[in-house]
Amino acid sequence: MGDEVTRVMVAVNESSIKGYPHPSISSRGAFEWTINKIVRSNVSAFNLFFLHVQVPDEDGFDETDSIYASPEDFRNMKQRDRIRGIHLLEYFVNRCHEIGVVCQAWIMMGDPKEVICHEVKRLRPDFLVVGSRGLGPFQKVFVGTVSEFCWKHAECPVITIKRKPDETPQDPVDD
Amino acid sequence: MGDEVTRVMVAVNESSIKGYPHPSISSRGAFEWTINKIVRSNVSAFNLFFLHVQVPDEDGFDETDSIYASPEDFRNMKQRDRIRGIHLLEYFVNRCHEIGVVCQAWIMMGDPKEVICHEVKRLRPDFLVVGSRGLGPFQKVFVGTVSEFCWKHAECPVITIKRKPDETPQDPVDD
Repeated sequence: MGDEVTRVMVAVNESSIKGYPHPSISSRGAFEWTINKIVRSNVSAFNLFFLHVQVPDEDGFDETDSIYASPEDFRNMKQRDRIRGIHLLEYFVNRCHEIGVVCQAWIMMGDPKEVICHEVKRLRPDFLVVGSRGLGPFQKVFVGTVSEFCWKHAECPVITIKRKPDETPQDPVDD
Repeated sequence: MGDEVTRVMVAVNESSIKGYPHPSISSRGAFEWTINKIVRSNVSAFNLFFLHVQVPDEDGFDETDSIYASPEDFRNMKQRDRIRGIHLLEYFVNRCHEIGVVCQAWIMMGDPKEVICHEVKRLRPDFLVVGSRGLGPFQKVFVGTVSEFCWKHAECPVITIKRKPDETPQDPVDD
């Protein structure tokens, strides 16, 4: 029944709700689902690969109190993004350490859906787990859906974990 | 990490390639993938639910050597369909028995994609596994895609397992 471990890639992102960098509700839900429903107590049989894709342009605009006046400001901003990304991945790596699952985590820059599919091609996981806000069709038009793109284009099986209805924030586009 | 077992529904169908009723290539692939990559040696933590949906009208037309002249002929045909379905499910139940996974299997009549989503609603599995021929967009137009419909409409996470390229029969629409 297979001596090789099952390699699971989990695409994770930051919450859009302000505060210290923490995982989005749907990322955390997708991770916990994978542990509870798939890995369960068989921790030595699975390896988890956490991929966090940062969108280079959008991130800066969150910080409306910042003024960019020199090249160094932009370097600092990039450095801050990097630190935020590392904190995000730390959450998942710590959880895996508590549970006893071997994992790896890394950050890439670009369009999340494109980068995820590219990394699937490169690393060939057994399957990909993606969280989804579970929005209706009207809301989806404005936010795009990484999960749908990955389901169609990733070269491995994809499992989409929708956010639980009782975890939906006030603005359902938030996550 | 969850005392309850993980309940996995697997939608299975008959092969379109003639011969004694046997599972389609993609159904068998989806099942074996689930065992090898998810269940692994943790057999007591999973229950498998095999759903086979028979399409009432199409099945009869396979038997071009049959003449239907009385109501009894149709009863016999239905009885034959039923027996074929039972044989199909027997394959999966036997495999589970060999492996040591608890399972259930049942047959329903109707449009597979609709019935699968309805049964998901009724039984609330933790996730649904569906095999797919992995056809290109042109071929898909003619055969419809149960997996895509289920991915969009089933009220649980769905994992689609594409047929391996080296298992594609001469006519890729066959399965």
